[in-house]
Amino acid sequence: MELLQETLEKIEKPDRSLEKEIQNHLDNLTKPPGSLGMLEDIAKKYCLARHTIAPRINKKAIYTFAGDHGVVEEGVSAYPKEVTPQMVLNMLNGGAAINVLARHANASVYVVDIGVDFDFKDAPGLIKKKIGKGTNNIRKGPAMTKEEAIQAIEVGIELAKTAVEQGVDLLGTGDMGIGNTTPSAALFAALMQEKVENITGRGTGIDDNRLKNKIDVIKDSLEVNKEHLTDPISTLAALGGYEIAGICGLILGGAANKIPVVVDGFISSAGAIVAYKINPVVKEYIFFSHKSQETGHVKFLNWIGEKPILDLGMRLGEGTGAALAMTIIEAAIKIYNEMATFDSAGVSKKE
Amino acid sequence: MELLQETLEKIEKPDRSLEKEIQNHLDNLTKPPGSLGMLEDIAKKYCLARHTIAPRINKKAIYTFAGDHGVVEEGVSAYPKEVTPQMVLNMLNGGAAINVLARHANASVYVVDIGVDFDFKDAPGLIKKKIGKGTNNIRKGPAMTKEEAIQAIEVGIELAKTAVEQGVDLLGTGDMGIGNTTPSAALFAALMQEKVENITGRGTGIDDNRLKNKIDVIKDSLEVNKEHLTDPISTLAALGGYEIAGICGLILGGAANKIPVVVDGFISSAGAIVAYKINPVVKEYIFFSHKSQETGHVKFLNWIGEKPILDLGMRLGEGTGAALAMTIIEAAIKIYNEMATFDSAGVSKKE
Repeated sequence: MELLQETLEKIEKPDRSLEKEIQNHLDNLTKPPGSLGMLEDIAKKYCLARHTIAPRINKKAIYTFAGDHGVVEEGVSAYPKEVTPQMVLNMLNGGAAINVLARHANASVYVVDIGVDFDFKDAPGLIKKKIGKGTNNIRKGPAMTKEEAIQAIEVGIELAKTAVEQGVDLLGTGDMGIGNTTPSAALFAALMQEKVENITGRGTGIDDNRLKNKIDVIKDSLEVNKEHLTDPISTLAALGGYEIAGICGLILGGAANKIPVVVDGFISSAGAIVAYKINPVVKEYIFFSHKSQETGHVKFLNWIGEKPILDLGMRLGEGTGAALAMTIIEAAIKIYNEMATFDSAGVSKKE
Repeated sequence: MELLQETLEKIEKPDRSLEKEIQNHLDNLTKPPGSLGMLEDIAKKYCLARHTIAPRINKKAIYTFAGDHGVVEEGVSAYPKEVTPQMVLNMLNGGAAINVLARHANASVYVVDIGVDFDFKDAPGLIKKKIGKGTNNIRKGPAMTKEEAIQAIEVGIELAKTAVEQGVDLLGTGDMGIGNTTPSAALFAALMQEKVENITGRGTGIDDNRLKNKIDVIKDSLEVNKEHLTDPISTLAALGGYEIAGICGLILGGAANKIPVVVDGFISSAGAIVAYKINPVVKEYIFFSHKSQETGHVKFLNWIGEKPILDLGMRLGEGTGAALAMTIIEAAIKIYNEMATFDSAGVSKKE
């Protein structure tokens, strides 16, 4: 609780005093002003977040939080629950999509057991921060206690802090947890005041019948937990998941330390909306990596007013969108640093 | 003419006999089927184009064709004509956006003088293939002769051939030429039968008055050249540019050699539409890199029925979109090659 309070007090709006200088530099590069579109926006946002006119991205790290969900017993997922630990082990072995794409992006991936219902013993490489062995079934009551939600948030904050100490200058979020589009959709519905039907999708690929059931489950969960949906953290505790709370914490920790966070897709955005509801300033430190194929993600992106970097029809999670978007963010920083200016290259300006 | 004929005869539809095997492999990777969206589509298209189930991208090369345009004297551009050779020199010095993004993508960039109105003497690194010192003003008659158009196409074909001999397995197109959104829009209008107003944009950033003038110039050009708009190559000769013809040739050469070509933005798409009109099969060998901010590009993409890989609001050309998209294509190939399968990782399948 103390760490969370401290962190929230540290989050401040980016100082915009350098904005003009940053913009002038971008406009002096040998290209028509604005012609690199989002690459220029990204470079500017990164500079402002870091409060620098000389941005560097030296070290990138993606934290993939894994947790299980009691609500899986309601038949909301296309995959059995044991896939959560199986995929964690796959990630530790380097065979999951996030490993491939993080290698491609030259980013480190850290897999965090924040709430998997499995005893990993001493699995090498795993960051062990288990708060509980999966959440409770949200159709029957709160997923976790408020204290547990804060503990899970603080896991994310601690990891962001450690990353910053290690020189990481771009963070990424990721998730693994069978069933976790259900708590995510429930959180969006509660925090955006959106209809459940509009925000609920097929996750890993359920059929029409299961989708109908999933919508009912989420409606019931909102109803049974309605007395707890009072503030963002209580709402997270009631409807969320451990991994979603960890992601929320990583975002808060990034913002507090002025390190931009690349938010992956649907599940990571559920963590982001909680962080945003706690303090909207976090948006200044977030890059939304991609528009997930999961129904409802585009509604969230419109609601928060952000254009995602990529739109590749992906819906896998793990941090895969974050890894790919990191390559674009890095390209933007290279544009800022490496292009010639009109003067240095002897190129004529606009007439 | 002979080289062009030969090349056209070599272009064939990808053999789809491996399709099932490729799809099975993608579906056996540890992810829900289809959950990596366009990455999976890209990997499959690349495999089919190369006719392989073991794709590799070892060497990537972007060819940036530079040419000048007589129509610039009509006041269609925001920049003076001397910027074309100035930017060519900037590229040779490594200071242009395309140099930065190609380095980022680990691709080579080759700058080709195919029609710049400037004597580069022995500029190191420049590929000298000048067909003419800029085109004629298309408002007054054909940009070039049909023979010149074919020569320029053959320059692109030759470069693709050389690249293939050097082991390049992914080609990219780029352009540099002040004024070249005007011939490009004229080509789209003629070849798509689209209204000039719908396809003409602000290029490097012209104001309302110049945009109105540009539209008039294009309408006049279509009118004065109407007798030449009979077949794709004659249309290219009448309305196009040397760099657009070179790009068209690179695409034909890539397709003939079964090497996919990443097409940059608006200008490169003008080269692509000519190639497509010559033989629609080239589409099977093209990746459209991004949706340009230039008005009309989205109309072309819809017309040809292709979803671009990126949508970053860019409108610079040079091959910048192609370079960025290459990083995504490479990611797709790594996904195909490096992910674990359900069996190898011991992960349970869908219920």
